[in-house]
Amino acid sequence: MKKIIDKSDTKSIITYIESFRPFDLAQCIEQLESKEQIKLFKILDPVMSAEILEYLEPVLQYRILNQLEETLTAQVLHKMSSDVVADMMLAIHRYQAEKLLNLLPEAYGQKVQTLMTFPEHTAGSLATVDYIAARSTWTLEKTLRHIRKIGHKAEITSYVYITGNKGELLGVVSLKKIILTEPQTQISEIVMGEVISVPASMGQEEAADLLTRYDLVALPVVDQQERLIGVITVDDLIDVIHEEATEDIQKLGGSQPLTEPYFKSSVFQLYRKRIIWLLILFVAEAYTGTVLRHYEETLSEVIALAFFIPLLIGTGGNTGTQTVSTLVRALAVGEVQFRDMFKVIRKEVTTGLMTGATISLIAIGRALLLGVDWNVGLVVGITALTIVIWASFVAAILPLILYKLKADPAVVSSPFITTLVDGTGLVIYFTIAKIVLRL
Amino acid sequence: MKKIIDKSDTKSIITYIESFRPFDLAQCIEQLESKEQIKLFKILDPVMSAEILEYLEPVLQYRILNQLEETLTAQVLHKMSSDVVADMMLAIHRYQAEKLLNLLPEAYGQKVQTLMTFPEHTAGSLATVDYIAARSTWTLEKTLRHIRKIGHKAEITSYVYITGNKGELLGVVSLKKIILTEPQTQISEIVMGEVISVPASMGQEEAADLLTRYDLVALPVVDQQERLIGVITVDDLIDVIHEEATEDIQKLGGSQPLTEPYFKSSVFQLYRKRIIWLLILFVAEAYTGTVLRHYEETLSEVIALAFFIPLLIGTGGNTGTQTVSTLVRALAVGEVQFRDMFKVIRKEVTTGLMTGATISLIAIGRALLLGVDWNVGLVVGITALTIVIWASFVAAILPLILYKLKADPAVVSSPFITTLVDGTGLVIYFTIAKIVLRL
Repeated sequence: MKKIIDKSDTKSIITYIESFRPFDLAQCIEQLESKEQIKLFKILDPVMSAEILEYLEPVLQYRILNQLEETLTAQVLHKMSSDVVADMMLAIHRYQAEKLLNLLPEAYGQKVQTLMTFPEHTAGSLATVDYIAARSTWTLEKTLRHIRKIGHKAEITSYVYITGNKGELLGVVSLKKIILTEPQTQISEIVMGEVISVPASMGQEEAADLLTRYDLVALPVVDQQERLIGVITVDDLIDVIHEEATEDIQKLGGSQPLTEPYFKSSVFQLYRKRIIWLLILFVAEAYTGTVLRHYEETLSEVIALAFFIPLLIGTGGNTGTQTVSTLVRALAVGEVQFRDMFKVIRKEVTTGLMTGATISLIAIGRALLLGVDWNVGLVVGITALTIVIWASFVAAILPLILYKLKADPAVVSSPFITTLVDGTGLVIYFTIAKIVLRL
Repeated sequence: MKKIIDKSDTKSIITYIESFRPFDLAQCIEQLESKEQIKLFKILDPVMSAEILEYLEPVLQYRILNQLEETLTAQVLHKMSSDVVADMMLAIHRYQAEKLLNLLPEAYGQKVQTLMTFPEHTAGSLATVDYIAARSTWTLEKTLRHIRKIGHKAEITSYVYITGNKGELLGVVSLKKIILTEPQTQISEIVMGEVISVPASMGQEEAADLLTRYDLVALPVVDQQERLIGVITVDDLIDVIHEEATEDIQKLGGSQPLTEPYFKSSVFQLYRKRIIWLLILFVAEAYTGTVLRHYEETLSEVIALAFFIPLLIGTGGNTGTQTVSTLVRALAVGEVQFRDMFKVIRKEVTTGLMTGATISLIAIGRALLLGVDWNVGLVVGITALTIVIWASFVAAILPLILYKLKADPAVVSSPFITTLVDGTGLVIYFTIAKIVLRL
């Protein structure tokens, strides 16, 4: 690509570029040197430039726009989605942003500024103002004329939103329905009045849930006075769904979620996100030392008991991890609610009883194989069953309690439940040992 | 709802029903008794019935359809999405399916039968045949007439697909573009020829990745001869994205993924999905017993070493879990590739060095606090550092190797890496102990 930009004339560069998709072009352009980037955007069609820029990082978007001629910058900026423009404005200096905003038509610039006021991770921050709005008194013919006039700029194209005098959202009608219906019909006759909309302050995850549940492809966003502020497109919410799953997976893995993609996160960021939970868990796990010292005498009398410590608490941790990850995900997608608490406990404890019994038999076999006393084998077997049931119970109940307390159930991560079961598991082990071995 | 169906006249039931959304209605109807379900569907408009049925389970769909009058069944069936109909047909007996297929217009029935041939989890199995196709020689005016004629049945409404003589996919044009362009224009002049399509045999996850990457809202599916078979809608692929994240989370939690939602999975199913990995890991973990027996002498000489076993291997397991979950997810969303192996190892080992050093200091403090010998404290400190680095390294390398071998990186689950680090961590611990304590 570098070669072609350096060597070719404008026309062949454009022909070459147009054979690729904006996403793929963006991937290549990221690798180019600044000089070539600018050269390319100077000759590209503003629509194409805008589409490519949308896939680049905000800071790079600005660096490129800033080096184009002012009229070209204005054109490209106006063709970009308003939500992308707002994100870029927020990433650059206030003074730089103002200069760019002045290049936009005033009414449009104001809408972008409104989008900039919504905090990250809210529905408002994802909304685009490039939708088509119509009045309920219009005929379909007039609506179509309106669409033809402003449709080139619109990003939301399958739906037309009906707004009232104060900009309040009254309904929605699909482009398909407009085409299928007699042109003289008034919009109000075919509009769906019950439109699903979300307040700008709603969390992005909740918005994505709504979209998933009702199979929507666009989600209108309103302010406190029910006025239409913008519309979220499905591709932005798909990104949210991916992000939220990534966060849940990282949390379940016992670290704070990264705010950037893996390779964009520095080693120090990785360190910071991980060390916090490692330390908390280390301190919690240090409790196992206290437990073991407490049972030092038992341990020196029957040193064979030590052989099974990692095996027993490890199995307990594994069981807990299985249960926790299943439940945290079920809570996240709404399959399980707090009111299901008792159903969940019954299900998990029953399953734990079955897996525990299976493991218990194998554990006794393993103990005898290691050549320890029959009694120690019995202790190991009983402990295995008890720990598995205990781990199932704790792992079932904790995420639900956090959910009820409106905390994040994924705090009960796999390392968290493992650590919890380690300490308590040891107490169970030595208590059973003392009883069975009469120590 | 039950009360209203039992007591009210047809008209008030319909008015009541129409104030809700199909998804919510489906949730309620699932709870009703069969008698009321049938009564309701007998009086509902076929379009509404079809929309509600799409949210119900295939077997329930059939049970309801089967009890309606034949002409009504035919109407409702024809209004349902073809991919949903195909799924239902596959869930019921062959003979029942044939009876239903005969109610559909022949050409349409054949298309549904084609959809039924694609294996689960492939792009083909998600496709609907309710799209709009046009010929490249048509004018936009003719295309619009065609849309008006068949559009009522179409599920894909934002795009029109251009097919050739043999049904091969030639391009796509958006409804918006059709409306914005002069009606006398020929489609071929505005068509996008480079359309992203997927083969019917492609895995659903890969199809969802394409949709995410290119911000599409519909994905055409073609057969081996590039003929258009159907189109996947974005809502079906959103479900796939959710499903795949759920599977990854359950796998990372160390169990085989459930094939049904949590409460639809029986205790026995949970048992089966979990016991396999529990047993494999138990057998692997049993190795720790062998290691400990091997160091029995060392252990009886310095019993204090036993106090730190859970703490040290637990911290190693936690570190490994953090790394594994971050990397498995990064591989799943394509942020990391196999060729990044060395970059990943460098990043993870450096991070491990930093977390390890921090943990090591705290570990020495903790050991001295427990009142053990200074030398033992030193052993604990060195071991903590070594185990954390070792866990980071193994957890970085294993998912990448599995990925390279085209196996699922999520096999390296949190319990897997914990178990691996437990056994190897003990060897590290006692080796360091023997050297430092000169045993």
